Amino acid sequence: MHEAFTDIGERDWDTGADGTVRLAVVGCGGFARGVVLPSIGDCDYVEATVGVSGSAENREKVADGHGLETTDYDGYAAGDLADAYDAVYVATPNRLHLPHVETAAEQGKAVVCEKPLEATPERAEEVVAVCEDAGVPLMTAYRMQADPLFRALKAFLDAGGVGAVEKFAGDFTFPVLMGSRGPDQWRLDAHLAGGGALMDVGVYPLNAARYLLGAEPEAVSGRTRTGGPYADVDEHVSFRVAFPDATGNFTASFSGHPNADFAVYGSEGVVRLFDAFQPNRGRRLVVETGDGSYEITGAGGGELREEFDYFAHAVLTGSDIGPDGADGLADVWLMDAIYADAE
Amino acid sequence: MHEAFTDIGERDWDTGADGTVRLAVVGCGGFARGVVLPSIGDCDYVEATVGVSGSAENREKVADGHGLETTDYDGYAAGDLADAYDAVYVATPNRLHLPHVETAAEQGKAVVCEKPLEATPERAEEVVAVCEDAGVPLMTAYRMQADPLFRALKAFLDAGGVGAVEKFAGDFTFPVLMGSRGPDQWRLDAHLAGGGALMDVGVYPLNAARYLLGAEPEAVSGRTRTGGPYADVDEHVSFRVAFPDATGNFTASFSGHPNADFAVYGSEGVVRLFDAFQPNRGRRLVVETGDGSYEITGAGGGELREEFDYFAHAVLTGSDIGPDGADGLADVWLMDAIYADAE
Repeated sequence: MHEAFTDIGERDWDTGADGTVRLAVVGCGGFARGVVLPSIGDCDYVEATVGVSGSAENREKVADGHGLETTDYDGYAAGDLADAYDAVYVATPNRLHLPHVETAAEQGKAVVCEKPLEATPERAEEVVAVCEDAGVPLMTAYRMQADPLFRALKAFLDAGGVGAVEKFAGDFTFPVLMGSRGPDQWRLDAHLAGGGALMDVGVYPLNAARYLLGAEPEAVSGRTRTGGPYADVDEHVSFRVAFPDATGNFTASFSGHPNADFAVYGSEGVVRLFDAFQPNRGRRLVVETGDGSYEITGAGGGELREEFDYFAHAVLTGSDIGPDGADGLADVWLMDAIYADAE
Repeated sequence: MHEAFTDIGERDWDTGADGTVRLAVVGCGGFARGVVLPSIGDCDYVEATVGVSGSAENREKVADGHGLETTDYDGYAAGDLADAYDAVYVATPNRLHLPHVETAAEQGKAVVCEKPLEATPERAEEVVAVCEDAGVPLMTAYRMQADPLFRALKAFLDAGGVGAVEKFAGDFTFPVLMGSRGPDQWRLDAHLAGGGALMDVGVYPLNAARYLLGAEPEAVSGRTRTGGPYADVDEHVSFRVAFPDATGNFTASFSGHPNADFAVYGSEGVVRLFDAFQPNRGRRLVVETGDGSYEITGAGGGELREEFDYFAHAVLTGSDIGPDGADGLADVWLMDAIYADAE
């Protein structure tokens, strides 16, 4: 096994920090309540103190379940609880990111904002600009970049583990209508979401390829399919991302058997990653080179805790943030170009 | 395990046939000598009787190693050994398929012609036309369509094994400079080959998707990269094939770690196939549905024997041939469109 995989989970970014960052969670939907808040409960450098929601029911849930002080969006905009948090996590529908980031910036709070950064490139530009103008740190919540297995994979690839990286492939299928989620959800609303499967789940392999390669695409293309309850947005997307010396071929879907495959094909080896993008799940990684092959099972995951500790550590120490606003903005522009090509 | 996989290797096409087809092998390169002729040695319905080559060394090899009568291309064109064979297998460089198929058609011999059918769509049209005009059977040598595991996979998909097929993904990387093959080979000659990685190996996932889906694409797109010894042809290609209700995202390369992945993503399951396209190799197939998952290892392969027995059985019984000339022609047109888009 390559040495890059021997210390999976060791925080290469953690130089130690004093204190904790008190966090307001703006938007208390299922992902924030069910995945993020429990993960923050395990964090070293973050404490969730405030929950902001337009839903009285969700405010009650985060108050009772996680001990948060709560307010609604008007209260948040008015700064009612601003003394109780140092930073803001924005987890609303995409098109509502900008006003909530603006509020945080006005309040001088650091921001971690869900992906995609906004519903359009122009609005994402504004998200970046308001944070820059206010001098507050902005992180785009690309949890994979904090995932221990992805970080080890990047170290492996950077060390030439598969020689030159030639190709990426991947699929992320997230059946949005599964479980209790019906068709009346913002992910299927083109205005609120800015797009469908590409914006919501296609952004994972897209960002993963850019992160792992450390390079920017020079061209993209795409094709979408839609229908039924997905009439306004792409139910399926297939897209190609052309880097100067590599290509990524990806698909993403809002329907279908749940799936998250990701593969890296190099001049001297292949890496296949299964369950690549499901939240907090241990993943399976298979490395194959001329020297043989090996499998790593159940590593990685827990990336939500890592993501929020990484963010808070950066805020506390004043260090640079990896997936910053520019990173998030780049993907929104690329997805806009993919949609334009698909038209 | 689905019943489609319980009788892998059972020949659903074999109704029995009397006699054997005597075959002339036209073009005795490494694949014909090292892979095809040994496989034909195991066939029930075929006997290789004649070898045609422009190389005295290769004629000697197939005479000594496989007991073939031999001649050169002039002798073949003149019909010197025409009484010694009933059918012709054309395994020359792509742009030489047409003249050799023409000769076979004039001689009234059935033809099995390597893929891609020719170097250009126009020439592939002629390959089909001369066989039609002469009334001789024409098979395009898509060995995967004879592979027991692929046939079982098609039966599984046709039976709704993964629900609706939504997406295909695949990569076929064949390092052409590996081993004893240097840069002076016809596969790197744009005129002789008609293209690079797409024509030689990309055609496998392309044809596999068309075969498995039983549908034709309505749009394609592609991107190629090249350089070094591959200056004339595509070293890497990534291409998208859009069917009415599904998409295929594929890559193929002439350099890189050897690889052949193929995956089918459906509304109710996923199938992943490893070592999908390597000749005669037992493959690994993983099926994952809502009911659980299972793996089939070492099944399939031996498809060269199956391919030639399938062809000979069809010739002997006068039955239709699955991968016919039209099938081969369709791929040449599609690859032409992929190259045009990549320009």
